[in-house]
Amino acid sequence: MLKIFPCFATAHRIFLLMMQEQLLSLIRQQGDLVRKLKLEKKDSSVIDVEVSKLLELKAKLEDGNQKKFVLKAPKGTRDYGPTQMAIREEVIQKVVQCFKRHGAQTIDTPVFELKETLTGKYGEEGNKLIYDLQDQGGELLALRYDLTVPFARYLAMNKITNIKRYHIAKVYRRDNPAMTRGRYREFMQCDFDIAGSYDPMIPEAECLKIVAEIMNAVNLNAFELKQPWEEIRLEMINEKGLSPDVSDKLEKLICLRQNTCSAVSEKDLNATLLEKLSSDSMLKSSDVAQAALNEIKLLLSYCEAFEIEDKVAFDPSLARGLDYYTGCIYEAVLLGEDENCVGSVAGGGRYDKLVNMFMAKGKDVPCVGVSIGIERIFAIMEHKQKLSGEKVKSIETDVFVASAQKNLIKYRMGICSELWRSSIKAEMSYKANPKLLQQLQYCEENGIPLAVIIGEREIEKNIVKIRDVALRQEEEVPRNDLVKSIQERLKNFAI
Amino acid sequence: MLKIFPCFATAHRIFLLMMQEQLLSLIRQQGDLVRKLKLEKKDSSVIDVEVSKLLELKAKLEDGNQKKFVLKAPKGTRDYGPTQMAIREEVIQKVVQCFKRHGAQTIDTPVFELKETLTGKYGEEGNKLIYDLQDQGGELLALRYDLTVPFARYLAMNKITNIKRYHIAKVYRRDNPAMTRGRYREFMQCDFDIAGSYDPMIPEAECLKIVAEIMNAVNLNAFELKQPWEEIRLEMINEKGLSPDVSDKLEKLICLRQNTCSAVSEKDLNATLLEKLSSDSMLKSSDVAQAALNEIKLLLSYCEAFEIEDKVAFDPSLARGLDYYTGCIYEAVLLGEDENCVGSVAGGGRYDKLVNMFMAKGKDVPCVGVSIGIERIFAIMEHKQKLSGEKVKSIETDVFVASAQKNLIKYRMGICSELWRSSIKAEMSYKANPKLLQQLQYCEENGIPLAVIIGEREIEKNIVKIRDVALRQEEEVPRNDLVKSIQERLKNFAI
Repeated sequence: MLKIFPCFATAHRIFLLMMQEQLLSLIRQQGDLVRKLKLEKKDSSVIDVEVSKLLELKAKLEDGNQKKFVLKAPKGTRDYGPTQMAIREEVIQKVVQCFKRHGAQTIDTPVFELKETLTGKYGEEGNKLIYDLQDQGGELLALRYDLTVPFARYLAMNKITNIKRYHIAKVYRRDNPAMTRGRYREFMQCDFDIAGSYDPMIPEAECLKIVAEIMNAVNLNAFELKQPWEEIRLEMINEKGLSPDVSDKLEKLICLRQNTCSAVSEKDLNATLLEKLSSDSMLKSSDVAQAALNEIKLLLSYCEAFEIEDKVAFDPSLARGLDYYTGCIYEAVLLGEDENCVGSVAGGGRYDKLVNMFMAKGKDVPCVGVSIGIERIFAIMEHKQKLSGEKVKSIETDVFVASAQKNLIKYRMGICSELWRSSIKAEMSYKANPKLLQQLQYCEENGIPLAVIIGEREIEKNIVKIRDVALRQEEEVPRNDLVKSIQERLKNFAI
Repeated sequence: MLKIFPCFATAHRIFLLMMQEQLLSLIRQQGDLVRKLKLEKKDSSVIDVEVSKLLELKAKLEDGNQKKFVLKAPKGTRDYGPTQMAIREEVIQKVVQCFKRHGAQTIDTPVFELKETLTGKYGEEGNKLIYDLQDQGGELLALRYDLTVPFARYLAMNKITNIKRYHIAKVYRRDNPAMTRGRYREFMQCDFDIAGSYDPMIPEAECLKIVAEIMNAVNLNAFELKQPWEEIRLEMINEKGLSPDVSDKLEKLICLRQNTCSAVSEKDLNATLLEKLSSDSMLKSSDVAQAALNEIKLLLSYCEAFEIEDKVAFDPSLARGLDYYTGCIYEAVLLGEDENCVGSVAGGGRYDKLVNMFMAKGKDVPCVGVSIGIERIFAIMEHKQKLSGEKVKSIETDVFVASAQKNLIKYRMGICSELWRSSIKAEMSYKANPKLLQQLQYCEENGIPLAVIIGEREIEKNIVKIRDVALRQEEEVPRNDLVKSIQERLKNFAI
């Protein structure tokens, strides 16, 4: 049983059209009657009865016409047209290639979660931005706010203790959209995470390596973000109960990087900073501070082994907003022409306790991950493309099958069928008798490199014309050599 | 400016840990104090004061421990693990290849739409199944119910009058989930549509061709669905006002296919049916019925040109539930071993008025499309895979970099870095000193074909060992030939 049988019917349509046909004929008759009665100047009560019958019939006919709608996508969201999608898919492909090169698998989770799965994970501000679904009976649900919490829920639910996974999907935040600045309520996230109990800083180093590889693949320059100290200081004092004088002392250490000469290499600067911090009396008295500094040293040495030491800048002033981080955090920041920070293009860190929040008991599942700022990368790529003035190919068609004369539609279909069977990307006009000029114009507008042109003469001589669209050169080829000849030409284009 | 600088800091963590360190030391001191007071048999009021101080300190420490959560995905939804995702991605890749081969572009629309965009498009039953978002101020929104209505909204909004697009994305229906039978509230749809004013039946024929190609690519057998006439009859009588006797007369025509000998070929059967319908006196008297029959004939002749005539079965009894169809409809149905219908795997039709519903004025944008039942295909593929007992490769890693001795982590990192730079998919253990046996087991469990093994001896001799994991054979290769040698082996595996 290897046959495939799509089925087909118009019964439904025939009935509807037949009824409409009958209705139209009734309306015509009734209209004639009303006009006749009016001409005969019949009593208005008689005419009114027939007019109302006519209106009733017309109302039946118009039953299908519905009211007009507000024509927009929801606030903070947008559609992606073919050109945007082509750019986005190219970026995603490069990113996925990188993740797969590092042995990652992918998973997917629902777009909404139980409301209680999300609450209490994103801080007070984040909580307010969660999109709730309406209570239509049943569970209380909300759209996912990021991919990390669903990932932790997935690990806990399936008792998975180690996995290296990526997840590229849209997330939702009921934020005040600033669409001109590229901030939307629906946007894509692109996460790579390593779950499992491993030795210190090895997974972290791979996350940084991946960021470096991806930025290299999409050809972007990045630089570190200088998070303002003032914000951290206030948080430390207000929320964590640190005294202002300790905080002031810390500030000096924290802002070391900003206050250190930047004429040296990243590697030397990192070493200088670590030395200063290690020898500070306040930090020296704390075992955890010393352990943390040792971890940084270890991470920087791994970055050297991964050949990214010139790309990693240790900056003790960095802080990230999310509640669930428990270890080292990092951020990659794009640098403009003038070395000003344009914005974050990747960020992440260690979150060893998040999975545990979903489990009644059991060991921690330590996790570390990085989120690629893929929407920002898309925006930069779109901008670059616009500046370049080059056309994006959103159609991949290699061959257009054109006819020079009328009544060749089935012949064109046969050629297309043959090309598709040989995995050649081919198109033809959906018009029964298209004009040759229009067909060739379509090729030029859409960057289709080859056209197969057939006419009665070609069919008679059992040949086809193959046209190089860019060069506007045509060549005749025996009909039986069509596929082979096209494959050769495409191979030459690819070189 | 080609450098990339991910940045890094632990300031935040150090502060938190230092505070915890201080807290623990305070708790220890306070505990000692309480024990001392108790030993000294001090007055209970004095002890109580110190105990309450101790509890306060302990409460601060436990601030981070949160309540446990219900551990589940929302009703009617599910997570997709790496194996499922690998199967799904393989199917999607084949389907996208087919769409691209036919010159289609892709677009994307938001997961939710204005509520009013969706209402009145899916019939009364459909309307009840729409997921509303909670009114949190602002617009009233709902999750998309299919991809066709958002597509029509997109066309109207952007004044696009012709496009050939595909869209693969999840849609949402608050249905009573029957998850054992593969019916979910969140599921993927996979649509291909052609918008534009073209000649009759040419776009329809390409839709059918695409279904045939996709079913062929995923190796599935399909057959036509026999939709029960009774359902259509009641609809015709109750909703469309047809008289029961006309309906009975139609039934005979409609069920012609079921009552005709099936020993002949699909093509002959189609021709016989068309002849009988064309010569029927009732249909003969209707211009639209005759026109519709002529269109069917035209479509079947195009199917012949596309070499799928043996796969297309004309069945006048087919009906589809959606309100927006205006022309011919079709359905591809999977046939089990015993030729029983297992279920629909694709369906679609013409909807010329849907885009117009979104426009205040302007011409119709005629559309025709097909929706591939991709969730059913996924389910069949998963089932087949389970029956076969073969392991699905969800990790694409080609080379595992292993060490035979301790303290070689940075050397392993260097080799990985070199492999990644050459676009070779490589992994290593995240343990600083992993056991060789465990590393080789990981390769065998995950189908990684090659392992690079290094030890002190290899480093000294400036060589590496390359192990064929399946054959358990090892060979020594000069360190400098590593990449070249691995690339050659991988090329041989691919053959």
